[in-house]
Amino acid sequence: MPTPTPTAAAARLVCTILAGGAGTRFWPLSRRDTPKQLLTFFDDRTLLRATSERVAPLCPPPRQFVVTAARLTDAVQRELPDVPPAHVLAEPVPRNTLPCMALAAHAAQTVDPDAILCLLPADHWIADADAFRAALATAAAHADAGHLVTLGVQPTQPEMGYGWIERGGVVAPDVFAVERFVEKPDLARAVAYLQGGRHLWNAGVFVVRADRALAALARHQPAWSAALAPLRGLPPGSPAWLAVVELAYQTCPAISIDHGLAEHEADIAVVRLDAGWSDVGTWQSLLGLRAADAANVVRGEVVAIDCADSVLVSAGPLVAAVGLRGVAVVATRDAVLVLPVERSQDVRAVVDELVRRGRLDLT
Amino acid sequence: MPTPTPTAAAARLVCTILAGGAGTRFWPLSRRDTPKQLLTFFDDRTLLRATSERVAPLCPPPRQFVVTAARLTDAVQRELPDVPPAHVLAEPVPRNTLPCMALAAHAAQTVDPDAILCLLPADHWIADADAFRAALATAAAHADAGHLVTLGVQPTQPEMGYGWIERGGVVAPDVFAVERFVEKPDLARAVAYLQGGRHLWNAGVFVVRADRALAALARHQPAWSAALAPLRGLPPGSPAWLAVVELAYQTCPAISIDHGLAEHEADIAVVRLDAGWSDVGTWQSLLGLRAADAANVVRGEVVAIDCADSVLVSAGPLVAAVGLRGVAVVATRDAVLVLPVERSQDVRAVVDELVRRGRLDLT
Repeated sequence: MPTPTPTAAAARLVCTILAGGAGTRFWPLSRRDTPKQLLTFFDDRTLLRATSERVAPLCPPPRQFVVTAARLTDAVQRELPDVPPAHVLAEPVPRNTLPCMALAAHAAQTVDPDAILCLLPADHWIADADAFRAALATAAAHADAGHLVTLGVQPTQPEMGYGWIERGGVVAPDVFAVERFVEKPDLARAVAYLQGGRHLWNAGVFVVRADRALAALARHQPAWSAALAPLRGLPPGSPAWLAVVELAYQTCPAISIDHGLAEHEADIAVVRLDAGWSDVGTWQSLLGLRAADAANVVRGEVVAIDCADSVLVSAGPLVAAVGLRGVAVVATRDAVLVLPVERSQDVRAVVDELVRRGRLDLT
Repeated sequence: MPTPTPTAAAARLVCTILAGGAGTRFWPLSRRDTPKQLLTFFDDRTLLRATSERVAPLCPPPRQFVVTAARLTDAVQRELPDVPPAHVLAEPVPRNTLPCMALAAHAAQTVDPDAILCLLPADHWIADADAFRAALATAAAHADAGHLVTLGVQPTQPEMGYGWIERGGVVAPDVFAVERFVEKPDLARAVAYLQGGRHLWNAGVFVVRADRALAALARHQPAWSAALAPLRGLPPGSPAWLAVVELAYQTCPAISIDHGLAEHEADIAVVRLDAGWSDVGTWQSLLGLRAADAANVVRGEVVAIDCADSVLVSAGPLVAAVGLRGVAVVATRDAVLVLPVERSQDVRAVVDELVRRGRLDLT
């Protein structure tokens, strides 16, 4: 394939931030109405705002969209005041990521008939924004050439919680054909992937021409394609738009871009991303992202005496911790969580127990 | 000495509860305005109320007094509605326990000229109230015979944090002469005391005739004796009473009954108490007092998943704990403490740090 020109294609990027997540893994800080993407972890910006600002130099806010849950649209609009309110697209119910691509494609074409879509998770952390944008520009150029393009993170550990991408032949510097997508591997396979050097982490970022995305959707997911086809040309967020979305989401099944589309496409490219990336998956993950000289991760008003490798977060009552090693303490106005960081996944069991007790107000 | 009659003497008991403590060891539950004696640990009664109710069958509330800090008198009166309000005696500043004995003696004589004083800490825990009252009645009988009498707890461990009493000859069943008082011993001595069988823990309870107490005070602490002598015959809590107390507390030094009086007396008896006793000294001490089948000490709304030997207290936000072993988590509306129980003593360092930060509102 010819070597595309990054800058020309990048100017046609229309970014859609996928902000529908409702995870419980950061309970008690994350709640149904303040999911992870609306939290601040590393500076005073929410992960959502950081995502928007990270791509803004390539794709300014008027060319950005957000897909989120209907109940979160107000919060998202407040958080991203430079993104036009009509660009915050509500989903009536969660249906995973595939329909987001369709919404994004139709919406993007209303601002740029030649739009190159970029779909981005709202809740990841990236250290080197310049490197990320460079990878995105490269991806845009290859998308312009007709490919579905993903970003693949250079792995640093045998992570079992991520999807992986096996790369094939070299397409260009740091750009490869995708051999296959691999769902969360066991430890042996994850170790083999890490050592083999042919696998990357799936960062959940897709770059593709809007018309190409809609064609692929029609090929692989005709039900969703047909149900959302009436969106073409409608103003995003208009009553007609909302009615089409409402009906489609009622009738079509939940499915991811990976399963519903990417795995069926033969011609996918992956751009290697080596920019310091995390999906910020658990309280424990924050320890890996702290400054090299920081004994603990500390947020809010905390008294820490002789503590190490701990996550100490106050979003309400002051937290006083003495003699802790590898413990997460997260305090909010109405709930406090304490657990060894390596048991961060068990936050889910706490939330399940609260639901069982009928304490939905705490979830 | 003759064997005295317990019941006749016990009817003359006038109990004074020493409730001036302002400890920080139960921070963040204990604060300046809600010290330990005003907290509930074992049932819905504060330690203060439990102390009052424990002695009431021998010494009903109209014969009870309380000595406490001036700022706590309202709270004490609310907590002990059956004790006459005038019987709650305010101290303008803390001066340790010796002047409390003088206040108690003068006050007791206003309700009973032949009063036998009993001075009791407000913040201890006793499992067997019947055994405690039996010991008190025995003590009253020996006090009536002219002795200064203490209660000595049968020790169960080489406790370095307590004062110990070395007993001498047998005076009566479970009553001994006191050989000497021993301040907090080192571990080797504490082990020797425990194994030797001649030592008891000093429970901080004194029983003595009021006239005898005032005579001993005049002998050993003439300054305090003279300064408080004008209290004789004054109604407790009257303006004249308060003026005398104010002046005496301004001019006389802080000193304990142990150091200022008991150690100088030759003729002291100790009644052995084997009733399940604790001074409830730290968060850790609560673990030793839990029910035999309780994995943890739990108070308030707590979700505990796979926790053991931990103290989990919610007095505000819900506490969710996962996978903890031997950790104390105490959550209040404005502060949360987390530490390994064996570091319970280090609560003090937290409070010191809060004072240093100017967060007196949290202390």
